[in-house]
Amino acid sequence: MRRDSDRLRFEIEARDGGARAGVLYTAHGEVRTPAFIPLATKGTVRGLESEEVAGLGYELILGNTYHLFVSPGPDRIADADGLHEFMGWKRSLITDSGGFQVFSLAHGGVADEVKGSGRPGGDQGSVVSIGEEGVRFRSYKDGSSLFISPEVSMEVQAKLGSDIALAFDECTPYHADREYTAKSTERTHRWLERCLKWHGENGPERQAVFGIVQGGVHEDLRRESAQAVSEAGVDGLAIGGTLGRNKEEMREVLAFTAPLLPEEAPKHLLGIGEVDDLLAGIALGLDVFDCAVPTRLARHGVALVPDPGNRFRLDLRRAGWVGSRDSIVEGCPCAACKYHDRDYLSYLSRAEELTAVRLLCIHNLTYMHELTTHARTAITSGSFHSYTRRVLDGEAPWTTA
Amino acid sequence: MRRDSDRLRFEIEARDGGARAGVLYTAHGEVRTPAFIPLATKGTVRGLESEEVAGLGYELILGNTYHLFVSPGPDRIADADGLHEFMGWKRSLITDSGGFQVFSLAHGGVADEVKGSGRPGGDQGSVVSIGEEGVRFRSYKDGSSLFISPEVSMEVQAKLGSDIALAFDECTPYHADREYTAKSTERTHRWLERCLKWHGENGPERQAVFGIVQGGVHEDLRRESAQAVSEAGVDGLAIGGTLGRNKEEMREVLAFTAPLLPEEAPKHLLGIGEVDDLLAGIALGLDVFDCAVPTRLARHGVALVPDPGNRFRLDLRRAGWVGSRDSIVEGCPCAACKYHDRDYLSYLSRAEELTAVRLLCIHNLTYMHELTTHARTAITSGSFHSYTRRVLDGEAPWTTA
Repeated sequence: MRRDSDRLRFEIEARDGGARAGVLYTAHGEVRTPAFIPLATKGTVRGLESEEVAGLGYELILGNTYHLFVSPGPDRIADADGLHEFMGWKRSLITDSGGFQVFSLAHGGVADEVKGSGRPGGDQGSVVSIGEEGVRFRSYKDGSSLFISPEVSMEVQAKLGSDIALAFDECTPYHADREYTAKSTERTHRWLERCLKWHGENGPERQAVFGIVQGGVHEDLRRESAQAVSEAGVDGLAIGGTLGRNKEEMREVLAFTAPLLPEEAPKHLLGIGEVDDLLAGIALGLDVFDCAVPTRLARHGVALVPDPGNRFRLDLRRAGWVGSRDSIVEGCPCAACKYHDRDYLSYLSRAEELTAVRLLCIHNLTYMHELTTHARTAITSGSFHSYTRRVLDGEAPWTTA
Repeated sequence: MRRDSDRLRFEIEARDGGARAGVLYTAHGEVRTPAFIPLATKGTVRGLESEEVAGLGYELILGNTYHLFVSPGPDRIADADGLHEFMGWKRSLITDSGGFQVFSLAHGGVADEVKGSGRPGGDQGSVVSIGEEGVRFRSYKDGSSLFISPEVSMEVQAKLGSDIALAFDECTPYHADREYTAKSTERTHRWLERCLKWHGENGPERQAVFGIVQGGVHEDLRRESAQAVSEAGVDGLAIGGTLGRNKEEMREVLAFTAPLLPEEAPKHLLGIGEVDDLLAGIALGLDVFDCAVPTRLARHGVALVPDPGNRFRLDLRRAGWVGSRDSIVEGCPCAACKYHDRDYLSYLSRAEELTAVRLLCIHNLTYMHELTTHARTAITSGSFHSYTRRVLDGEAPWTTA
């Protein structure tokens, strides 16, 4: 681990049990943690302008290297002086390595697969070969042959100019056996060395690098990985790969993995962002969480609500909302809840109007931001445990601060 | 014509040649004219919240009775206290009669057909029968049989609670011959009487009714229609039906039709909203203009620009914008132009991202609002002719006020 480099500084301001409230200082400003990170997959948070995402309170978003690599390509973004300028985002930006998407092509399935619910993979995607050097795959855009290696990933991320780059790793799926996972994790460590070497020689001065801890559901592999990544000289650590088949297993894997990470490091949990999972992660001392779920749910007419019995979800496309004058969530400060009722939002969503996708995106991102902001306040005041309990009991995040 | 009823008052504040600057006072406030009217087809301006449309400066939008009749249905909207409340729109609202969409089903084609560029129709749509009583058609949503008559149209519009309702008419297409057009126009007049009778007995007190002048491209029929509609006791007049095969014919038909309308009436030109056509309509004393084109173009990646040689259009999806650091239009006050360049907007639009549709909608609606706002200023200062010339020569609306 590098500490307090010019690239990145992380200050822990308060602790409450395992949870902590901190501030990440990047080349583009401050990020208060714990923080949820919205995805700007292809250079935009779906349906929202960059200014609006900042207006919702977000200080950090994530761009997908794989998608941006395929289109519009790193050189075009570099010509625009990087992804910040390209998309008009003035605050902090993290990019992933491209590994997750590439390997989900190879292993079949995407996020569900990593979480164990997909079917075993094979060659369903368009990955041509995986080797020590890197991964060759076909562009989903035009079928052309593309290659990603640790060096290519870092070079692309250098061109994107993110504040935090993630090292190139193999994201191991649930169905991978122990032997495959062990070998893959070791290769990920070798790839991390190559990433850091390339970055040290060629990377942007103010770009930080996070290493990714792999090891699947195996405690000893996670331990080895946490140690290897910590010793590699990274600016922060992320937990990647499969966390098990279900929530119980995920909690178990996180419970033994999180404490293996260096205490003072900023810690990123990759791809996890459901309300209860996020609170569990915060309790374990994890700081930032990116996830496609809140915006993906919005596209399918689902709003986040304080209803633990329904996984905190309200399906506006199902029947039953005709005539409902209730807002999605009483007291929610978002535009969807301030100006509209369930009747209208349900109609719009079933009619597949863009306005519905957008309003639900705004609601779900507001909900996640409120959740982490009030978690932060609770940590600061030493009431994180009771805050968590109340949210899990069905109170809205903003009523329990 | 009714004059200065409780329903609607129209004051002409300034004249410049045939053009005039006025204010429409509806039950929901003032509408400064000349005005472009964005379409909230299905209860939302595609991709924009109602608050945002107001924020762009618009004081009047149009809801489509046909679409809202099919889904979510007038009773559901009435239960929400009308379309204003349903969609959260606090300013003035006009609804069309449903006739345009129903007849474009019957006559084949839609807007292009009315403008003469479509092919002759027949039974391509799902209209089952057209008769003196009304029109029977099949719902595009679930195939159920629906019926619209003058009384049904007015009843639906009463339930929508718009400030201005349009009388139910047959929108005659270009390919209709003189005899059909003459008979259809006479029927439209009988339908107008039925509309006004129903409305007088059952309509909302503060809802105004505009009658529609038909007659196709035939001067004598337009004259008869203008007289019949004027004498029927309407609150304003709209020009509907085909205006010819091309822009030249449209200008000719408008040139003889517009002067047939009562001087003091608010005058609505239906379905026309290209930059040059709108200026031509304003010069002829027309006051409000609704049109799907600006928002439809946005969905296809086309932005409005001061380029008369290209019909004021810039196609962001065509090649050639890679690396362009120019905004769509220099000096345009919209969010798309303020924060983004052609390079990014072109990429987003080709990637079919919702954010692109939305940003281009905002740009195109800003452009149309600037066009009419500055036209109004020019009329007030007696410089409308030179304003028009400069816009047609390629100056941006806001640089020529």
